[in-house]
Amino acid sequence: MLGFSRLVNQGRFLQAKDDYDESRAVIIGVPMDFTVSFRPGTRMAPRKIREVSYGLEDFSPYLQDTLQNKSFYDAGDLDLPYGNVTKSLDIIEQAAEIILNDGKIPIFIGGEHLITYPIVRQVAKKYPELKVLHFDAHADLRDTFFDEKLSHATVMRRVCECIKERHLYQYGIRSGVKEEFEYAKGHTNMNLIDVKGPFSENLEQIKGYPVYITIDIDVVDPAFAPGTGTPEPGGCSSQDILEVVSHFRQFNVVGFDIVEVSPLSDFSERTSLLAAKILREVLISIC
Amino acid sequence: MLGFSRLVNQGRFLQAKDDYDESRAVIIGVPMDFTVSFRPGTRMAPRKIREVSYGLEDFSPYLQDTLQNKSFYDAGDLDLPYGNVTKSLDIIEQAAEIILNDGKIPIFIGGEHLITYPIVRQVAKKYPELKVLHFDAHADLRDTFFDEKLSHATVMRRVCECIKERHLYQYGIRSGVKEEFEYAKGHTNMNLIDVKGPFSENLEQIKGYPVYITIDIDVVDPAFAPGTGTPEPGGCSSQDILEVVSHFRQFNVVGFDIVEVSPLSDFSERTSLLAAKILREVLISIC
Amino acid sequence: MLGFSRLVNQGRFLQAKDDYDESRAVIIGVPMDFTVSFRPGTRMAPRKIREVSYGLEDFSPYLQDTLQNKSFYDAGDLDLPYGNVTKSLDIIEQAAEIILNDGKIPIFIGGEHLITYPIVRQVAKKYPELKVLHFDAHADLRDTFFDEKLSHATVMRRVCECIKERHLYQYGIRSGVKEEFEYAKGHTNMNLIDVKGPFSENLEQIKGYPVYITIDIDVVDPAFAPGTGTPEPGGCSSQDILEVVSHFRQFNVVGFDIVEVSPLSDFSERTSLLAAKILREVLISIC
Amino acid sequence: MLGFSRLVNQGRFLQAKDDYDESRAVIIGVPMDFTVSFRPGTRMAPRKIREVSYGLEDFSPYLQDTLQNKSFYDAGDLDLPYGNVTKSLDIIEQAAEIILNDGKIPIFIGGEHLITYPIVRQVAKKYPELKVLHFDAHADLRDTFFDEKLSHATVMRRVCECIKERHLYQYGIRSGVKEEFEYAKGHTNMNLIDVKGPFSENLEQIKGYPVYITIDIDVVDPAFAPGTGTPEPGGCSSQDILEVVSHFRQFNVVGFDIVEVSPLSDFSERTSLLAAKILREVLISIC
Amino acid sequence: MLGFSRLVNQGRFLQAKDDYDESRAVIIGVPMDFTVSFRPGTRMAPRKIREVSYGLEDFSPYLQDTLQNKSFYDAGDLDLPYGNVTKSLDIIEQAAEIILNDGKIPIFIGGEHLITYPIVRQVAKKYPELKVLHFDAHADLRDTFFDEKLSHATVMRRVCECIKERHLYQYGIRSGVKEEFEYAKGHTNMNLIDVKGPFSENLEQIKGYPVYITIDIDVVDPAFAPGTGTPEPGGCSSQDILEVVSHFRQFNVVGFDIVEVSPLSDFSERTSLLAAKILREVLISIC
Amino acid sequence: MLGFSRLVNQGRFLQAKDDYDESRAVIIGVPMDFTVSFRPGTRMAPRKIREVSYGLEDFSPYLQDTLQNKSFYDAGDLDLPYGNVTKSLDIIEQAAEIILNDGKIPIFIGGEHLITYPIVRQVAKKYPELKVLHFDAHADLRDTFFDEKLSHATVMRRVCECIKERHLYQYGIRSGVKEEFEYAKGHTNMNLIDVKGPFSENLEQIKGYPVYITIDIDVVDPAFAPGTGTPEPGGCSSQDILEVVSHFRQFNVVGFDIVEVSPLSDFSERTSLLAAKILREVLISIC
Repeated sequence: MLGFSRLVNQGRFLQAKDDYDESRAVIIGVPMDFTVSFRPGTRMAPRKIREVSYGLEDFSPYLQDTLQNKSFYDAGDLDLPYGNVTKSLDIIEQAAEIILNDGKIPIFIGGEHLITYPIVRQVAKKYPELKVLHFDAHADLRDTFFDEKLSHATVMRRVCECIKERHLYQYGIRSGVKEEFEYAKGHTNMNLIDVKGPFSENLEQIKGYPVYITIDIDVVDPAFAPGTGTPEPGGCSSQDILEVVSHFRQFNVVGFDIVEVSPLSDFSERTSLLAAKILREVLISIC
Repeated sequence: MLGFSRLVNQGRFLQAKDDYDESRAVIIGVPMDFTVSFRPGTRMAPRKIREVSYGLEDFSPYLQDTLQNKSFYDAGDLDLPYGNVTKSLDIIEQAAEIILNDGKIPIFIGGEHLITYPIVRQVAKKYPELKVLHFDAHADLRDTFFDEKLSHATVMRRVCECIKERHLYQYGIRSGVKEEFEYAKGHTNMNLIDVKGPFSENLEQIKGYPVYITIDIDVVDPAFAPGTGTPEPGGCSSQDILEVVSHFRQFNVVGFDIVEVSPLSDFSERTSLLAAKILREVLISIC
Repeated sequence: MLGFSRLVNQGRFLQAKDDYDESRAVIIGVPMDFTVSFRPGTRMAPRKIREVSYGLEDFSPYLQDTLQNKSFYDAGDLDLPYGNVTKSLDIIEQAAEIILNDGKIPIFIGGEHLITYPIVRQVAKKYPELKVLHFDAHADLRDTFFDEKLSHATVMRRVCECIKERHLYQYGIRSGVKEEFEYAKGHTNMNLIDVKGPFSENLEQIKGYPVYITIDIDVVDPAFAPGTGTPEPGGCSSQDILEVVSHFRQFNVVGFDIVEVSPLSDFSERTSLLAAKILREVLISIC
Repeated sequence: MLGFSRLVNQGRFLQAKDDYDESRAVIIGVPMDFTVSFRPGTRMAPRKIREVSYGLEDFSPYLQDTLQNKSFYDAGDLDLPYGNVTKSLDIIEQAAEIILNDGKIPIFIGGEHLITYPIVRQVAKKYPELKVLHFDAHADLRDTFFDEKLSHATVMRRVCECIKERHLYQYGIRSGVKEEFEYAKGHTNMNLIDVKGPFSENLEQIKGYPVYITIDIDVVDPAFAPGTGTPEPGGCSSQDILEVVSHFRQFNVVGFDIVEVSPLSDFSERTSLLAAKILREVLISIC
Repeated sequence: MLGFSRLVNQGRFLQAKDDYDESRAVIIGVPMDFTVSFRPGTRMAPRKIREVSYGLEDFSPYLQDTLQNKSFYDAGDLDLPYGNVTKSLDIIEQAAEIILNDGKIPIFIGGEHLITYPIVRQVAKKYPELKVLHFDAHADLRDTFFDEKLSHATVMRRVCECIKERHLYQYGIRSGVKEEFEYAKGHTNMNLIDVKGPFSENLEQIKGYPVYITIDIDVVDPAFAPGTGTPEPGGCSSQDILEVVSHFRQFNVVGFDIVEVSPLSDFSERTSLLAAKILREVLISIC
Repeated sequence: MLGFSRLVNQGRFLQAKDDYDESRAVIIGVPMDFTVSFRPGTRMAPRKIREVSYGLEDFSPYLQDTLQNKSFYDAGDLDLPYGNVTKSLDIIEQAAEIILNDGKIPIFIGGEHLITYPIVRQVAKKYPELKVLHFDAHADLRDTFFDEKLSHATVMRRVCECIKERHLYQYGIRSGVKEEFEYAKGHTNMNLIDVKGPFSENLEQIKGYPVYITIDIDVVDPAFAPGTGTPEPGGCSSQDILEVVSHFRQFNVVGFDIVEVSPLSDFSERTSLLAAKILREVLISIC
């Protein structure tokens, strides 16, 4: 057997461990972007985020801790029937359920934002007091989109139906239709445009609760994250989001996803790199 | 009312006429790419092909004729429920049915290749002797793909179920699984790699029949058409395909589509330009 | 007549109304970039900005108001004789004159910055007390450029000749020759680099006057607006410019233009998106 | 003085000699693209073609000869008043006149195709029997374009007015309006689409005459030359054009230009490389 | 253990088998591009070629055979000390030696062309009658380059020193300095520009000998393979090279490499796809 | 001699003077990127930075001073033996030595960061009290990298060996392995993430000492500087770095370099423009 060569990139996230059973968190990629209306391409994100993760170091100067001794497993990508939304959401939900049943924290890499719905449905079943943190440029609170209940534009409305009133915290929102903002007034904690300020004000309300976090990469300005399906100018910087992420270890994080990275639209790969860096910080924080 | 300005590009194909009733052919865009497995993005094609058509002249030196006096209507794009394949195919089929009932020739701009299936189903209902010409790098003759009967990879198999045995003529095929080539031996007229040679040999067998033509732009080499979802090196040149297209007016063309153009993957726009030029030649030929 | 399809993008700006007579503002595109010295391409901007406007929502969370009930007309692009500067400027000036005579607010989408000159000449004729707000990385105050009086680099000098002394307010300036900065000391209100700070200090001086606003997109840093002809590092962020724009409704805006967007140099389209978003805010503010 | 370093690229074409007086040919760049209607950007071509020429070898395997011992001068780019067409054409014409008066062969790098007109006017004055070879996808034979006599779309019509009837030979033409093709029938030798075949048939008619050659790079298919303003699918290959060029040394070439290279639209630089290679072959052939 | 997900792309070439011992051929990636003078980036090629191989089918319509039942192992990439040429060549040579000693056929994916030298040195030691087939735009026959004996520009000269006189067959050569062409006359079988013609003439001379094949992807025209370090216009098409490759199974191939693919310079990925397709054909032919 | 034309870009930096002897500073380009592990391409930086410098003005509004009357020489690029690290470092060191011996300030344009080591070695020999300012996203303090002592990842460790304890000031660091941060605690002044704050706090400690400044462009966020080899999200803005640079004239700067610009990865050229602008400010400050 040839001894001196190696497979540099096994197709897994940086420092993922071999052992599922011992792992505290499990990464799963979801290459789904069927309900996207503007620019598809997020299905390439899971693979690309893993690939560029090798351009990062294991050590985080933000957390002064390293990924090396953290126990997490990278289960690869889900096999989805392309174009079949219902069946795909079922598969995602089953994956979430298995991981939760095994007592582990599910970490999903999208794919489009709709994937958050089946995951939260399972997480909320296990944790009825669940609070959901939602970082996004878009409210995603429509009831239907092109007459469809299940869409990337309705996903947080569906999520609201799974959790308690006002248990949804939204940051960085700067796009939506009027109805969404009205719905938000009654049912969620929505913060416009700014991310850092409102987030630090909410810290105490969130600590102590089981927390699910979903980051739509377009919360960051397209200057920092051009690779996304519906870029919306006027977002926060990568420094801002990384500072926010550095506080996650104060929470009891029971699930996480990062969605809407679209590598095709970012020749520089900096969007995927930012997503990988956020993921590294989250993994160090929760494992 | 302001008199000296204009809207250069009305969002319609070059020289499209205002009158549906008088038109001989009707263009419809189908922004669907949900079942695509490799690189999505063909949903942007209808709009981009119309846009770049204004970079072409009305006159064809190939046909020595002009688009100016041809009567065709551009009906715009279909409203599709993103991610819902079955409903989308229904809508496409209804559109084809209406156009055919109105005694007009349907011209579809994809979108992914699966759209050909509902169109041919209607066309074949009207013309039972229909022959289908299929230009493509891929056989598209699988029975199922990821367990789904309806996919861009199964579309010509479904088409075969709508028309008579061996009424499918395939050109330029250079990719497929073994089963597809075996199926082709028994059921279609498949020609490998080369396009021009076999096509001119088949000319006489096709004349006189009602003919539906479907062109997957990836039949052309990715050097000439890089903007496509599953590029396959080793294809014909743009000169080759244009020469083939110049013979279409010898046929009784009763329907046409051009699919799998993916503008996102072609910064130079030459794929969309080639598609627009093919479309111009087809419109001059049949109107 | 085919009932179930539509032309998604009519080539007009998002929510533009059909009726010129009822409109309060009129959008006109000016595809001119003949005097540009570095990277041409701004002539594609009007079409692209309209196209990407459909990637935005009608509702502005910044202004808590919507474009839906605003009355403005999109007159399309001017027909310009390519390469003929004098004739082109005449046509632009006539367009501005007609719109002003009809009692409407002219909104121009460039094109290069030189187009501001003939517009302001007409606006200043109607409003002798006119103040001009100028957001730009470059001073544009040369007297001649390559011996030509009419150039994108001399445009604000020409504008100064149309309005009262010190009625020009400049923000974000971070490039120019020595003579321009000296001229500015005597004749304009120039603010270096920073945009938000000086702008809010000037608010009271500007209110009450008729105001023309010209935004050269390169006032924003090339990170946020890479698609421009002469990118100049060190500019403000998209959040900064959007915050500034949100104050425009405090003014009596009698004319507006946004110039120097060059879509060819921005694969991500975020420059055009930012321009479209600014335009949406301006239209909501003044209509 | 620092002895061991160098300025790799002096901004001149590969192997250009220092001495103007001894040179047999003179290269001049013309960064003009003001009358272009579709995609501007050819003004960057002279600089880029010189830059990439250093990616080529001095030796031509096609001609079995080298650029090293050829005497030609690179005079740099003309200073043009951006946006002023008439003055620019005057400057170009003066440059051609000086070079011709000095008994040298003018070699121009465009810029847009309109530059050919003032050059040929001077060349034809000196050589009344001049024949002009024109390689292009477009006929360029309109009498006016947007009411302007001087345009990239009318240039060969203007050229016809400078030379004898039927002294214009056109190759590769595959786009134009009807009037152009009718004009060609009476006044030029136009060959559609194909380049190699008709060219070799014309060889004997051309030998012995003074010959001016103008190559619009879009005669080559956009697969081989994507960096051009109005790409037209269906052109010849780079092998074809290089084979044609290898015959030029059989002619009495008294002037040459290569135009319409647009580096901005070709990330791969292969269009500029092809232009530089053609230029190398021409220089070896005529010096 | 999670049962329903998978790692789609293990970072190995399509259909690579798990068992080294049973394999007939062994793939090794060599991410080295230190001596490249123009555009570096070929070090990314091994990983990218493996990645895009999943966009191909297992079955080859050219060979009417499939990769599924072929026994070959993908050993990953060599660990190279970046910037240390001598040590890197030693490591490559050791890898070749081990594979040859194990009775297997070495298949290398470059990296730059210099890697061919240490491999051929080992192969020639084992097969003294070795003939080398060299497909390339460049002669690569210099004795030194910038005073260095070991360079991508000298590699075939070094190879000549390992094999018998005139055992090197070169195809597609269209660039070099005079000395290289003179050396070729005395020592190699060099064929200019054309690939298919000379190759089929040489078939009989090569059969029966042990054959090493090295393909520099730039033998193909930059239209088909833009992703390479020193693109040279005027090459063959992808159809040409694939036809040539389809004859390889007539030879006794004892080693193979494909080099100079530079993914960074090819946004469309068609260069890597072409390389992967060639590799598929070679693997089917020799395993 | 032709009088009316010019060579716009002589391949030298904007406003470089012709006279070496009179110059106070000397620019040298170092096209070396052999030890880079992720994305090579910085060797193109010196040429590109010079080229885009012509897109800037001579005058700095930041410093209220101009480059026109500053005396500096641009000596071009060093001739390096591609792939030979040791020899290349020797050549760089000799260049630094000559410039220092001639009483001038060396200004180097990288290339990769490793080039800083031989330069500082010479500078520190001349100025034993030297303090080094290091702006970078990466600590670059490893002792070895892939077993090599000389690498872009070890360069500041090597620099530490040339200067006094704690004479290294690091700003913007946000990536590294644990050992580097521990080393920094004992031996350098390292500041994490933020640049502006810590820099202004250190001002007084640095004044009065001879200062060498090295700027790795990746200290700036990839939004502002996407063209770099190992982009690291979370950096400062271009406004931040320009503000910091405006303080350099308070120092006794005895040497400077800017490294790791990789033009290939930045289609918009804004990274090179930022580097050129920084260089302009530095030249105005020190000449």
